Amino acid sequence: MRSKSRPDASVQPRSVGIVGAGQLARMLCEAASTLGIRTVVLASASDDAAVPAASDVLVGPATDPSALRALAARCDVVTFDHEQVDLDVVSELEREGIVLRPGVETLRVAVDKAEMRTRLAAAGLPVPAYEVLRVADLPTRGASELAAAIGTFAAVHGWPAVVKATRGGYDGKGVWRVDGEAAARALCDDTARGSSPLLVEAHVDIDIELAVAVVRGIDGSSLAWPAVETVQVDGVCREVRYPGRLDTDLARRAAAIAREVAAVVDATGVLAVELFASGERLLVNEIAARPHNSAHWTIEGATTSQFENHLRAVLGLPLGDTAPAAAHVASVNVLGAPSRAPSTLAGGSCDPMSAALAVRGAHVHLYGKTPRPGRKLGHVTVCGDDPEDVRARAWAAAQALGAPSPAPVLPGAP
Amino acid sequence: MRSKSRPDASVQPRSVGIVGAGQLARMLCEAASTLGIRTVVLASASDDAAVPAASDVLVGPATDPSALRALAARCDVVTFDHEQVDLDVVSELEREGIVLRPGVETLRVAVDKAEMRTRLAAAGLPVPAYEVLRVADLPTRGASELAAAIGTFAAVHGWPAVVKATRGGYDGKGVWRVDGEAAARALCDDTARGSSPLLVEAHVDIDIELAVAVVRGIDGSSLAWPAVETVQVDGVCREVRYPGRLDTDLARRAAAIAREVAAVVDATGVLAVELFASGERLLVNEIAARPHNSAHWTIEGATTSQFENHLRAVLGLPLGDTAPAAAHVASVNVLGAPSRAPSTLAGGSCDPMSAALAVRGAHVHLYGKTPRPGRKLGHVTVCGDDPEDVRARAWAAAQALGAPSPAPVLPGAP
Repeated sequence: MRSKSRPDASVQPRSVGIVGAGQLARMLCEAASTLGIRTVVLASASDDAAVPAASDVLVGPATDPSALRALAARCDVVTFDHEQVDLDVVSELEREGIVLRPGVETLRVAVDKAEMRTRLAAAGLPVPAYEVLRVADLPTRGASELAAAIGTFAAVHGWPAVVKATRGGYDGKGVWRVDGEAAARALCDDTARGSSPLLVEAHVDIDIELAVAVVRGIDGSSLAWPAVETVQVDGVCREVRYPGRLDTDLARRAAAIAREVAAVVDATGVLAVELFASGERLLVNEIAARPHNSAHWTIEGATTSQFENHLRAVLGLPLGDTAPAAAHVASVNVLGAPSRAPSTLAGGSCDPMSAALAVRGAHVHLYGKTPRPGRKLGHVTVCGDDPEDVRARAWAAAQALGAPSPAPVLPGAP
Repeated sequence: MRSKSRPDASVQPRSVGIVGAGQLARMLCEAASTLGIRTVVLASASDDAAVPAASDVLVGPATDPSALRALAARCDVVTFDHEQVDLDVVSELEREGIVLRPGVETLRVAVDKAEMRTRLAAAGLPVPAYEVLRVADLPTRGASELAAAIGTFAAVHGWPAVVKATRGGYDGKGVWRVDGEAAARALCDDTARGSSPLLVEAHVDIDIELAVAVVRGIDGSSLAWPAVETVQVDGVCREVRYPGRLDTDLARRAAAIAREVAAVVDATGVLAVELFASGERLLVNEIAARPHNSAHWTIEGATTSQFENHLRAVLGLPLGDTAPAAAHVASVNVLGAPSRAPSTLAGGSCDPMSAALAVRGAHVHLYGKTPRPGRKLGHVTVCGDDPEDVRARAWAAAQALGAPSPAPVLPGAP
């Protein structure tokens, strides 16, 4: 970070470079503009979601050292919209003195599920039983040997086993539930081609899925937003509820784990931790060392949003209050409709945007992305006093805008 | 507005053109990005405040027909950051079919104080006693004749009289308090050069200055945000307080007047009305047919901000809830420090931005403008339950960032 010790620092532009230009970058840019902070995004294409919101735009691959150097030359600090980076490349940039926040050691854990499991387990944090299967280390490097290793794991921990790609999975992609040896063999026939390790984990009987976002400053101080219940449909987060079905004790324990994870991986900025509640146990499922879908609700639902606090943290500024701003908050993702689906409101008297904005208190966020089936196009947040009313309104507005799926019925809901 | 009847309207870009690229345009762009709306600004210079926040930028004079046509060609609807437009030019554009919101007839009232007073008085709305002095109509067109006309007005309404330029005044500029005939003559020697009319008004003994923002849709429906107390120092708004010293009845009457003003001038979008409370009377002081400094508090302090609702209105979308989001809100402007002033925190251990963001719950907005003495560089909003605490925190953060003036002592404050 270039030092700027000019006297009127309040109005000197501070600038943040963002690797990637998806919706997370877009919402970072929106928060930055409010604070008078300049943004420059490294977009993969000129129609990426963050391009219209950024102060400045470069187009190039996130794995290209020269594109990353060009980005760094235009800003004080570099942060990330996604994990699709080349660790060798970013390590080299960090050695050159470019300030990356989070840094390479944090990214290493965030981009690789085997590394993440190993580091968290070593720190005594609760994770599902797991084993890293390194295909390249197997004597025959073959599918049958890999399937046998899954079987050996399942012999101890029981079927089904959960097999995960260690890199690149998201929204349920790269995660397979394997019910027995035949299924393991079928999966391994498909996946044992590469040399990337696989992770095999014990299946967890999930009572509630939850998430905690933490922001951690460069001085190691951290704050957690309240834990939220996340509602997944087909492996994709559809809804986030504060406080949802989380009781105070569960929420408190989850927040403590999440802050500990942030410390273990030495995070700077926002780190999101997704957890499973299973009986009395809380287990860490996934982590992301960046702003995360499970904390979009903080834009209207908390005193300081995850996006503003990520910027504050990576710029070394004081962290903002993470207290909730309402008794109940629901945030529902807007997903692209299946291509053969009729327009949501075909025959209706108004267009989808009008229908969504007619919902009282609906905070509509659209990312400017071209619709594709299942693609995350936006989200809607509603704050209020009545959890069912808040939930119903958020779903109504989100359904007007995107895929017309019904709100999932939650266990224990009235 | 070009008609776009494509089926998936929710994610089709809607676009708004903004004449001018100051902080109002910047905050419109921030709100637009959230809604997935594209913005294009017509900036007077490439370093205008809104340039980094807009999706697209044109640079040119706001009075140039070809620049305005180029703006209109890139968007669905044109709106305004300021009133420094040429009414003949915008009238011609409206005749050509370009959709201006607000339209020319509203702009005509908003840009000319004589027109505004005349229209509101004709509609029976409460305004100070006034007279329009048309220099060009005076037999000698001279300063002494103008001063005599002020004297004649004051003979009826008493000294002091308030003389105002009918065009181009803002932040106390173009407003003169005239205590007697000698002062009138001195003023007229300075001002009777042009052919623009002057307005002379009766002085009002002001108990409280207040403001109401209204948003009015293209169907004529309107909503008012709660009335706020405004605190002026040297003619410049320094602080806005919700609810401040306004009791429920006064706030209700002010909101009714403001909605009536919006109807009388046929506003589309946000219209701000500044009023004086004097004894039992409420009098309209100024109006602005655009988002306004007195309603910046709505970004965090109301369910829907003035910027989002202005966009909704000019695009023909449903208006959002204007209910307050907190019991008490204070918003304090950040003004540029006098050029000879030392840096606010010289010798302190942290920079101004850090000091401001360290204030709990301080929502800092900086507009990215080059500091000049007295220039509006940003604002800080704080929401909460205790009016004095909220006010103290907003001032603390604003003072860290800008001119180190003390918070004004309010009449009746503890």
